[in-house]
Amino acid sequence: MPVKEVNGVNIDGLMQTVGAVKANPTIAKFRFQLKNQWIDGAHNRSTINQFHGAMQDFDRAQPFTLDADEAPILLGHDQGPNAGEYLLSALAACVTGTLVYHAAARGIEIEEIESTVAGDIDLRGFLGTDPSVRNGFQNIRMNFKIRAEVSDEQFEELAKLGTTFSPVLDSLTKGVQVTVQTQRMGAERVSSAA
Amino acid sequence: MPVKEVNGVNIDGLMQTVGAVKANPTIAKFRFQLKNQWIDGAHNRSTINQFHGAMQDFDRAQPFTLDADEAPILLGHDQGPNAGEYLLSALAACVTGTLVYHAAARGIEIEEIESTVAGDIDLRGFLGTDPSVRNGFQNIRMNFKIRAEVSDEQFEELAKLGTTFSPVLDSLTKGVQVTVQTQRMGAERVSSAA
Repeated sequence: MPVKEVNGVNIDGLMQTVGAVKANPTIAKFRFQLKNQWIDGAHNRSTINQFHGAMQDFDRAQPFTLDADEAPILLGHDQGPNAGEYLLSALAACVTGTLVYHAAARGIEIEEIESTVAGDIDLRGFLGTDPSVRNGFQNIRMNFKIRAEVSDEQFEELAKLGTTFSPVLDSLTKGVQVTVQTQRMGAERVSSAA
Repeated sequence: MPVKEVNGVNIDGLMQTVGAVKANPTIAKFRFQLKNQWIDGAHNRSTINQFHGAMQDFDRAQPFTLDADEAPILLGHDQGPNAGEYLLSALAACVTGTLVYHAAARGIEIEEIESTVAGDIDLRGFLGTDPSVRNGFQNIRMNFKIRAEVSDEQFEELAKLGTTFSPVLDSLTKGVQVTVQTQRMGAERVSSAA
């Protein structure tokens, strides 16, 4: 029997996942993780492979490496996107993927999705030259263009699916508690900050 | 005259940047951005190139492309990290780079930095099966190991620099306003959600 797909998403698999999670919520608990190694200056590298979910540990098909760096104007050497750009890419990927999955679950076929994401930041926060300026992004704007043969009413519904269910959008707009521990390499001593 | 670097950061350049920003705060206003294209299912691709800062538009040395996808257990085909993993990589890159720059500004030489980042998420939020469960990460944990020949007192100072000034950590812990507009491809009609 061929796999039934909508928007490239295996619908039977998606419905089975929803059923399994309703029967046993522990299946829904996932942990994503990475290792990062500083290389030089603004250049560092994250390696992504293992994750935990559905009560099992998994490896990705291959480890993914993500190099981060700054442009020369920010004293880097352009070896990769910077951290802010990675944050925006997380947001774009998440709202897009969420929209696609939830549309598939509703049987709504999508032909194309394109988006732009832009974020404003005032580096006086990062530089510490003005304590009244926040370190982070001041605001982020996303613009989506979607092609789908649906009624205007269904398009309105479709347009909200990504923002309603996206984990990264929720994390970023509502905030997440982040705990940070630091120790000397090879030592036991731990400093904590939150 | 050779460039004076600490931790791979051009210190004269960094001090000139701080001075220029103090003289004209508009120089500190940056805008980072990307385009994203949905490919199929959970697979989509962000392209990063232009940004605005220091009152100019810049291109990166080359456009960077970041493919996002899910693992098979989440109905993807492992073509790249997922959105949550991109979010964690943004955080790792930012806290690491921020620590390196601020240490350089203080003349503190760092030999090595390694970190792990892990985030817990309950996918009942994403799936919409339990409205009491948030969509986003429940919590994120970062563990840093740093090698530097400094006193314990200076190490305590060093350990706090990343968390004190990191733009992505600030964005994620305190939240950012994100506005989202959606329109039909080729149409004028706009749906808004925030």
